[in-house]
Amino acid sequence: MSLIIQKFGGTSVSNSDSLKTVAKRITECKDAGNEVVVVVSAMGSSTDELIELASELSNEPSPREMDMLLSAGERITMSLLAIHLNNLGYECFSLTGSQAGIITSSRHGMAEIEEITGERVKEGIEKGKIVIVAGFQGVNKETREITTLGRGGSDATAVALAASLKADRCEIYTDVDGVYSADPRIIKEAKLIDEITYDEMLEMASSGARVLMSRSVEFGRRYNVPIIVKSTFTNNKGTIVKEKTMEEAIVRGVTHNDKETKFTLFGVPDQPGIAGKVFSPLSEGGIIVDMIVQNVSKDSKTDISFTAPSDQKEEVMKILTELSKELDAEGADSDIEIGRVSIIGAGMKAESGVASKMFSILGKNKINIGMISTSPIRISCVIPKDDMTKAIEALHQEFISK
Amino acid sequence: MSLIIQKFGGTSVSNSDSLKTVAKRITECKDAGNEVVVVVSAMGSSTDELIELASELSNEPSPREMDMLLSAGERITMSLLAIHLNNLGYECFSLTGSQAGIITSSRHGMAEIEEITGERVKEGIEKGKIVIVAGFQGVNKETREITTLGRGGSDATAVALAASLKADRCEIYTDVDGVYSADPRIIKEAKLIDEITYDEMLEMASSGARVLMSRSVEFGRRYNVPIIVKSTFTNNKGTIVKEKTMEEAIVRGVTHNDKETKFTLFGVPDQPGIAGKVFSPLSEGGIIVDMIVQNVSKDSKTDISFTAPSDQKEEVMKILTELSKELDAEGADSDIEIGRVSIIGAGMKAESGVASKMFSILGKNKINIGMISTSPIRISCVIPKDDMTKAIEALHQEFISK
Repeated sequence: MSLIIQKFGGTSVSNSDSLKTVAKRITECKDAGNEVVVVVSAMGSSTDELIELASELSNEPSPREMDMLLSAGERITMSLLAIHLNNLGYECFSLTGSQAGIITSSRHGMAEIEEITGERVKEGIEKGKIVIVAGFQGVNKETREITTLGRGGSDATAVALAASLKADRCEIYTDVDGVYSADPRIIKEAKLIDEITYDEMLEMASSGARVLMSRSVEFGRRYNVPIIVKSTFTNNKGTIVKEKTMEEAIVRGVTHNDKETKFTLFGVPDQPGIAGKVFSPLSEGGIIVDMIVQNVSKDSKTDISFTAPSDQKEEVMKILTELSKELDAEGADSDIEIGRVSIIGAGMKAESGVASKMFSILGKNKINIGMISTSPIRISCVIPKDDMTKAIEALHQEFISK
Repeated sequence: MSLIIQKFGGTSVSNSDSLKTVAKRITECKDAGNEVVVVVSAMGSSTDELIELASELSNEPSPREMDMLLSAGERITMSLLAIHLNNLGYECFSLTGSQAGIITSSRHGMAEIEEITGERVKEGIEKGKIVIVAGFQGVNKETREITTLGRGGSDATAVALAASLKADRCEIYTDVDGVYSADPRIIKEAKLIDEITYDEMLEMASSGARVLMSRSVEFGRRYNVPIIVKSTFTNNKGTIVKEKTMEEAIVRGVTHNDKETKFTLFGVPDQPGIAGKVFSPLSEGGIIVDMIVQNVSKDSKTDISFTAPSDQKEEVMKILTELSKELDAEGADSDIEIGRVSIIGAGMKAESGVASKMFSILGKNKINIGMISTSPIRISCVIPKDDMTKAIEALHQEFISK
């Protein structure tokens, strides 16, 4: 008998019909002789609607009250799902994050899971019941305040629960069939990936693939929980994310990100510790800096470029303008017309020439490379936004389809 | 400095605009130098919408899961209201029933408040903060399960909190100006009652006035908490419910109820203990029996009539049909075409002839009286449903307007 965690997101639980489809997935798994613990998100767009209501009442809602507000969402989904499963004749009950013992840090809106006590979950499993747990929410141990986990929080709940309960696997149900070798909306021939390593998935997630968030993959890797990403609505077997895969692909996928802006601080006096002086205030300002390039120094001055999310553009420019004065630099600028393409694959580590092949493919297609960043299993290039589709097509054609 | 509990129901908190109006009531009270604790219901029709969703998923939803589901409603209202009050510059936080220490019995959907620990509420008051508490919900002490209080539950939360905190008064805000001498939709000249005793209000509530539920009035009487019923949307000073009123009216109000059915069990052998044999199975079946009349015995047989809610008609007739066989009676029948009119007033106790005046008013208007029931401060008559409006008009004209 296996213990399986199944997680269903917002689009899978948007109305009573989709809840019935979800119930079918759960009961099939239970009927096959497994123990099942289910994690759910809030229904469809209900979280957005609550955020909208709050914004009508305050420009800066208290994070504590926002958590109280938003945690109502999963409570609605989980009890409706339990009501339906009971109606189908299955013994089943729902638990809030607090009741399930999801203990988190006290940072409202972005809490981290610190521990899962899970007494009532274990009790339910022992009695052969289906247990439904509210995703995205927890409780702070000291103050007993309700917290939420931020973006990707329900996935994190599911994988953390799987780790804590030593589950055999964690199934993340979504509205796509799994992880693809490129965005199927752009690349028609994109292939569904059967197996992918945690490391590859982390690189995919952080370079643009949005099907699974990094934080849940990290949890999975740390506790070695196999994660399966699959569709609620089809019978495709999905993508399994695990430590080692049967086949090591040189390039597993091509990802892209067009939601970043390139920032440059010009003519910074090149002296030891300058990078720290630039990036400390950005990090303190909550800016998520990604790629960083420092030009070769010329006349003891250098240009520092980096990418950050476009929606943080105003904050970044404010910090850079101040920094420019402070460091006696020659000014700051931003370029929103950029895109990033990446190729990811654990096979790169052993294979040489992958990077140069990527650069020459882009060159043959007359695409100018603005910045380059690499890891042992990823190569990313910043290119003009207008060339992005052409770049993805060419790279997918050469590395995957061939 | 006074401590005031303010309760706002569904129609007062149906959208962000009405929440702003509610916030105005709260801040006016706080600015006047009072300590304020606020109790809220779920927004507008949101509870009905959740019940509808549940009914799409099950004919018989688990009461435990229904409580989990419905308790999300007040959580949304209270956090939105707290967000808005914070935005207006008031220190304020919200508490679920569980966090506020509303300890209840374990009967899901109809739990009774057993105790209010209220530590976090008291702490908030001491720090000068506005505390917002979720109405209608609590937690069972033994199992820590979420419960809801059933109809009128938020009013009960407010009055029980007022009693437990020894508040100076409990203000129940609603969409009408207070308690009227008759239903103002029927009687144009109905007068807003300034003051009314707990006893009178209990009789009004149980005989048809729906502005305040009996259970909260009973709480108020037991702990001597003055209750003020008033409108969220106007500046009328409302109706105060308390132990003694300045002026003792002979008749305070005329109420009516057209949601009951008259049931009769014919030809029951008249022997000691027969009433118990009839009403025990009804009570065990959850039937809320109201007026009871037993005819004078003839040939050692008697007819027993009573009223009960029309929506329980099927269950009642099932029980009566069985009883008829069991007791060797002559059959059972029901009459849905009845209405009940009542006059209520503490002054009746001292004044003789009020009952006979009522009967003769009805007689003059050619209204046939089917059943009569009295208490020291109330007289009720069951009459044909079609005559109800005429009866209320005549009684209000003679007893109140004159």
